[in-house]
Amino acid sequence: MTVPPEQQAREAELAHRVERSFDACTNPRLRMIMTALVRHLHDLIREVRLTEHEWTQAIDFLTRCGHITDDKRQEFILLSDVLGSSMQTVTVNDQACGDATEATVFGPFFVEGSPQIPVGGDIAFGAVGEPCWLEGTVTGAAGEIIPNARIEVWEADEDGLYDVQRGDDRIAGRAHLFTGDDGRYSFWGLTPTPYPIPHDGPVGQLLRAVGRSPMRASHLHFRVSHPDYRTLVTHIFVRGDQLLDSDAVFGVRPSLVKDFVRQPIGTPTPDGRVIPDKTWSRAQFDIALAPTDA
Amino acid sequence: MTVPPEQQAREAELAHRVERSFDACTNPRLRMIMTALVRHLHDLIREVRLTEHEWTQAIDFLTRCGHITDDKRQEFILLSDVLGSSMQTVTVNDQACGDATEATVFGPFFVEGSPQIPVGGDIAFGAVGEPCWLEGTVTGAAGEIIPNARIEVWEADEDGLYDVQRGDDRIAGRAHLFTGDDGRYSFWGLTPTPYPIPHDGPVGQLLRAVGRSPMRASHLHFRVSHPDYRTLVTHIFVRGDQLLDSDAVFGVRPSLVKDFVRQPIGTPTPDGRVIPDKTWSRAQFDIALAPTDA
Repeated sequence: MTVPPEQQAREAELAHRVERSFDACTNPRLRMIMTALVRHLHDLIREVRLTEHEWTQAIDFLTRCGHITDDKRQEFILLSDVLGSSMQTVTVNDQACGDATEATVFGPFFVEGSPQIPVGGDIAFGAVGEPCWLEGTVTGAAGEIIPNARIEVWEADEDGLYDVQRGDDRIAGRAHLFTGDDGRYSFWGLTPTPYPIPHDGPVGQLLRAVGRSPMRASHLHFRVSHPDYRTLVTHIFVRGDQLLDSDAVFGVRPSLVKDFVRQPIGTPTPDGRVIPDKTWSRAQFDIALAPTDA
Repeated sequence: MTVPPEQQAREAELAHRVERSFDACTNPRLRMIMTALVRHLHDLIREVRLTEHEWTQAIDFLTRCGHITDDKRQEFILLSDVLGSSMQTVTVNDQACGDATEATVFGPFFVEGSPQIPVGGDIAFGAVGEPCWLEGTVTGAAGEIIPNARIEVWEADEDGLYDVQRGDDRIAGRAHLFTGDDGRYSFWGLTPTPYPIPHDGPVGQLLRAVGRSPMRASHLHFRVSHPDYRTLVTHIFVRGDQLLDSDAVFGVRPSLVKDFVRQPIGTPTPDGRVIPDKTWSRAQFDIALAPTDA
């Protein structure tokens, strides 16, 4: 669409006037962010020649996102996730630092205060699924072992639901533990399965309108922290999962895809646990933390 | 801030992947808008190097906007207004068309179904303020007279409040009328006074944080429609108002600033109305509508 120079000048003058309205802001970081936000917002409106009806639809969409959001449902995080802006924020703040493990999106299902388990314990607390033995070592990026690192893990059950989505007060499929003196950890969890992000609200409607799936690739969440290192928020994914290339929130990184090796029924377990009549799986995830100042 | 090429490549690859996720969208207009939205959103995050804490603050801000919004309060429209994006949308859709009257923002206070008054009637219905006689002619852009054009007018009272902000069911300071066979209209309203946009919510907090005022320049709203012409949504402003250069929503256009001439106490009125012990004002606003296809 060709926009006459006189019209372009009117639009540019308006955008410039709005940018200048932040000149009196005494917080330089806020001024910088708001100025950049306004510049991109006005560029977007001018570039697509947004109609007034489309503007009304956008206001209505944000209103509906606001009204479905409560203590347990966060539609704005879902929106940020499906637009890739959560993952882009993670990426900007996770500049590659040697061999440190890569980060990915936090997601809306973390809960503070999960139960503590010992090394080798079980995070399921009744969550149903195929048992999975996870193990690994936590080191610094230079290879030094990190004892006493705190590892939070959380995941959905085989129905694709996290405990907080069940509408009761159960705590299941989440726990924390600490690495031993050798920097090692292990625990029983569930083999991750694919599930959809909540798609009964405006973000789900948007995904349907654009022909996108709400499905997330199978994964298990980790948050690993130690006072001397940078906190890592990440997941691991299941090699062979057909959704790796179409994860609804763009969270997959090749370095985070792991082998979950299925064990035939009756295969002895690492800790002597007896699992009758059921397969189980095992995976290894060695974690390298970046320095605090990276 | 210098971002290493390898990091730039990771970020660009992610943004590109998100843009491509809309490839299957069968609505070309929606695909175009979403792709442009994603491109600008990712450019913004990368350009300002958005921190994860700032991302969390943005999610929280949108959540609070959603929770204060209801049938009578629309914080997302206020947000769009103070970022100039409402006015930019108006500007994009109101390309200068000869001498047609310019548009400006609609605002959140229009109500359908206002009372009808005859030419020369009064829109106040009890709203308090200095009486103001408004008059003018509605024409097409080529100068032809337009009889039977529908004119909706609405304004705040001298306390700076619209009827819908009073928390009761009053209808005051709003009405509609139709031009006569000569294309002329006139009515009694109130001399416009400055007022703040609602600033007790997140948008008000944002304005305070960036050192901006919530005040709007004094104005009176018009919506003028006729089946054969493009509907015009606009205001007129008061020449001499000190807020003309700092309107909180960037709605002022020089062509919309009018002389509101104050009349000494006792000055005879155009229609013989007696206004004892009080000044009144008068203003003229001739309106030119653009063709439907402009």
